Amino acid sequence: MRMSRMYLHTLREVPSDAEIPSHKLLLRAGMIKKLVSGVYGYMPLGYRVIRKIEQIIREEMDKKGAQELLMSAVQPAELWKESGRWFDFGPEMFRLKDRHDREFCLGPTHEEVFTDIVRNDVKSYKELPLNIYQIQTKYRDEKRPRFGLMRSREFIMKDAYSFDRDWEGLDKSYWDMYDAYSKIFTRCGLKFRPVEADTGAMGGSDSYEFTALSDFGEGVIAYCDACDFAATTERAACLVDIPKQDLEEKELREIHTPNVKTIEELEGFLNVEGHRLLKTLLFKVKGKLVAAVIRGDRELNETKLINALKIPEHELEFATPEDIKEYTKAEVGFAGPVGLKNVMIVADEEVPKLKNLITGANKTDYHIENVNYGRDFEADIITDLKLIQEGDKCPKCQGPVKLARGIEVGQIFKLGTKYSEVFGAKYTDENVKEQPMVMGCYGIGVSRTMAAIIEQHHDENGIIWPLEVAPYHVIISVVNVKNEEQMKLGEKLYQELLNANVEVLLDDRPERAGVKFKDADLIGIPIRITVGKKASEGIVEYKLRSEEDKQEFMYDKAVSNVLEMLKKAGIK
Amino acid sequence: MRMSRMYLHTLREVPSDAEIPSHKLLLRAGMIKKLVSGVYGYMPLGYRVIRKIEQIIREEMDKKGAQELLMSAVQPAELWKESGRWFDFGPEMFRLKDRHDREFCLGPTHEEVFTDIVRNDVKSYKELPLNIYQIQTKYRDEKRPRFGLMRSREFIMKDAYSFDRDWEGLDKSYWDMYDAYSKIFTRCGLKFRPVEADTGAMGGSDSYEFTALSDFGEGVIAYCDACDFAATTERAACLVDIPKQDLEEKELREIHTPNVKTIEELEGFLNVEGHRLLKTLLFKVKGKLVAAVIRGDRELNETKLINALKIPEHELEFATPEDIKEYTKAEVGFAGPVGLKNVMIVADEEVPKLKNLITGANKTDYHIENVNYGRDFEADIITDLKLIQEGDKCPKCQGPVKLARGIEVGQIFKLGTKYSEVFGAKYTDENVKEQPMVMGCYGIGVSRTMAAIIEQHHDENGIIWPLEVAPYHVIISVVNVKNEEQMKLGEKLYQELLNANVEVLLDDRPERAGVKFKDADLIGIPIRITVGKKASEGIVEYKLRSEEDKQEFMYDKAVSNVLEMLKKAGIK
Repeated sequence: MRMSRMYLHTLREVPSDAEIPSHKLLLRAGMIKKLVSGVYGYMPLGYRVIRKIEQIIREEMDKKGAQELLMSAVQPAELWKESGRWFDFGPEMFRLKDRHDREFCLGPTHEEVFTDIVRNDVKSYKELPLNIYQIQTKYRDEKRPRFGLMRSREFIMKDAYSFDRDWEGLDKSYWDMYDAYSKIFTRCGLKFRPVEADTGAMGGSDSYEFTALSDFGEGVIAYCDACDFAATTERAACLVDIPKQDLEEKELREIHTPNVKTIEELEGFLNVEGHRLLKTLLFKVKGKLVAAVIRGDRELNETKLINALKIPEHELEFATPEDIKEYTKAEVGFAGPVGLKNVMIVADEEVPKLKNLITGANKTDYHIENVNYGRDFEADIITDLKLIQEGDKCPKCQGPVKLARGIEVGQIFKLGTKYSEVFGAKYTDENVKEQPMVMGCYGIGVSRTMAAIIEQHHDENGIIWPLEVAPYHVIISVVNVKNEEQMKLGEKLYQELLNANVEVLLDDRPERAGVKFKDADLIGIPIRITVGKKASEGIVEYKLRSEEDKQEFMYDKAVSNVLEMLKKAGIK
Repeated sequence: MRMSRMYLHTLREVPSDAEIPSHKLLLRAGMIKKLVSGVYGYMPLGYRVIRKIEQIIREEMDKKGAQELLMSAVQPAELWKESGRWFDFGPEMFRLKDRHDREFCLGPTHEEVFTDIVRNDVKSYKELPLNIYQIQTKYRDEKRPRFGLMRSREFIMKDAYSFDRDWEGLDKSYWDMYDAYSKIFTRCGLKFRPVEADTGAMGGSDSYEFTALSDFGEGVIAYCDACDFAATTERAACLVDIPKQDLEEKELREIHTPNVKTIEELEGFLNVEGHRLLKTLLFKVKGKLVAAVIRGDRELNETKLINALKIPEHELEFATPEDIKEYTKAEVGFAGPVGLKNVMIVADEEVPKLKNLITGANKTDYHIENVNYGRDFEADIITDLKLIQEGDKCPKCQGPVKLARGIEVGQIFKLGTKYSEVFGAKYTDENVKEQPMVMGCYGIGVSRTMAAIIEQHHDENGIIWPLEVAPYHVIISVVNVKNEEQMKLGEKLYQELLNANVEVLLDDRPERAGVKFKDADLIGIPIRITVGKKASEGIVEYKLRSEEDKQEFMYDKAVSNVLEMLKKAGIK
């Protein structure tokens, strides 16, 4: 492509609403354009990268026998009502009506549609296993779209669904996808880690998130250097870890704590450590109050609470001050589980093992001490509610846990029979017996992967595309297009590289060399060949975007170098 | 691909709601699936065809210097309000609101978005011309979705937009696209005709529709064998053709025509020819009545009426019987332009030239004769309102016009400055003067093209894909998969063809040969190689889907025949 004819509008200024490198650079390099908040268009250079990532995904999926198809993005409400998710999904789902007032949504995901198709088509065990996928635009009306392609309301996703005879079959499909995903992200040039993940609103049991490590990632993962443990903080199990404590249960006693409302204030006021206290957090779920109780020095993991309550995420709200006053009969800051009426209590599994705790008295300006589970209160649910923290004991090997930020670029789920049971997606087995299909689902955020690659591959001057996803492999920068010899050599190089099927840009714009180099760096083309003053001798300058060094070569050596580099990278 | 592992569910029965061959065959061959009325999913085989058509489009567009990008399908209402089409588009546009109650639509087309981008980016004449395109799913909430992919509510479209400095530039862009489209449809194996078309709601001046000829096409084209005239009937200009008639204007006279309401009844009752009569058709536009008057033996072309009124299509409604009674003071069937009050009159251009016509008297059971334009009534608009008919005089050469049915697979438009004026999409010319960009837009219905190919390429047994768009080039049918020699030769052929990059299916299903042949014919794979009893001698049967003949070949000759055929067809 000749850059004089290319639709490219790079920006010198960093757009004010862009906070992270990928968002800034995608906008500055003119690769994406914002239409409205959280909705972007892909401009020619950016769309080439998207299509390359898609092609890598396609190739690795096909190698595993997965088959590509394309379903409608607009889905009828009926299917979502059948699964129950029409209501579960809440305001994140874009909804619309057609001219006959029939309800539809813009698909945030496609379990319903794929299960519906397969239940109608597949009848026999002979037709299983099956893995079908699509690459398509998905829609989620995010509350806070941000970070460009990282959390947008419209995004390109590859979603695959596997259908197996049994759990053993699912296991194979699942690990096949684990393998395909590892290859895909490796080919995309990403440093990533598969981490155990929460299955959230998708249902199911096992799940891995493929997380690209990045300081600007929205997710936090916990991992252990001593073993292979890695999990999202949402998901990471926490060990029960009881500190030294009293052996005897002491007598319950009210203590006057005027205006002492927070755990920190209480620690200071009573001069005790956090693990002696019991924290009570009040929520509202469908109009009813729920109290989560957990040791004072622990943080609540809301995802674990949501899972314990078996509710969709959006149904968990904080209780209002009015609610708190009504139920605890006290000002905010003095809630506790003892004597709390009409409130469901969910306790962390450490709580029953702790002795003589201090907690709110449900009475303004008072706490009580020597609270003991069983004797003084009981919970409706006891479970792990803890959010893992740096330095906690690794749940696998008890070594110290570390935390890191990351970007979720892919996720694989074992759905099991959740959808096949609801939709009646059954097959007849070898013994002519009906069985529910055992399902898995597997997603890759295509547009988010593009952003993650930039997060890991950039410098202060712009993007540094890995060769396999670069929009073009080579850029030929002609320093002075008015110089006949330079332009002639530039054209010659351009034609030779084109003939060898190299994706090449010829910067034939009548701009200063500085502008050309700045743009070449910004858009991140891996190999730059500069044709300048030594053109008359056939000498060009060869530079990799990822390195500082420049070398002078005869032009034919430059061509053979390019071909060699592409060959080494396995690019046709 | 091994068919034992392929997601393929062919149907023996013709689905009851499918009326035309492409719809029936796409469903029967398991290539598409209906989700709801007018919304289809593409199954693996069908999606391969879609992707091949897309690739052909991409290649031919890129050859013309057009650049691919991808814009959001969800578009903000603001842009559509800026162009005025938010209201014009009517119920055909899917509309929705986000969680903040902001209005959006699902794009039925993208003039607004593309013009918005270009107005923000392009400043100088040096950046023009420009042609940018996308291949994307579009949405139109059709009143009567039907014929499968032919008229659906969600469809895949390639839409391109060109931006030029002036009309001369647009002319080049326009004819470049004309050329690209001709190549695209030729490569898709279509018999087609570019016909002059109405520009309708898109605005603009010149337009060609690329029409694939088909008995089941929804559109009708008029053409002339004596010259190169070809136009949609909506668009086709009609000559003024006045029959022999009186020279003098006679006196107006009421005639009693009890219960004679239609033109046909009137012809019979008065024993006169249709051209002596004047037809009056009453419409309602935004609450006001409009009368279209035209010679009795002519048919009204509603598109010409809509264009004359400069209104969007959906605003033209038939007047109700109540309206007619109120305005004409008579029963339905006796309307006429003479003395008609508070009604806008639009007359066909023949009307002022006709003498002594017979028309309704606006009085129940009465007509009047000797009506003359000018003396007895006048029209607010005089224009061509005639629908062209078989045998009419060709507007170009006066030869006899013929009619044929066709499927609109593509359309090219000269938009001119319609959108650039409204959106302020201006550039600075060589003299530092601001100029509006001159635009064109160019669409191809990708999914509809797939259907049109089938309409032209099928027989009673199924689809007959042209090689270049076939989902696979070759199908190897192993007659008896339990026979070791047959299976071995089948596998050998399969591997050799795969190694030569041929797209090949191996029918290794444990089915009867009859079932395999039926499926192979139904899904329309161009080349079938049957491995049967003579496998032990290395002999296979070679058959083209498009021909009856079968030939016996040694298997290596079969391979070389395939390669030669693909090479001849220019397929890599």
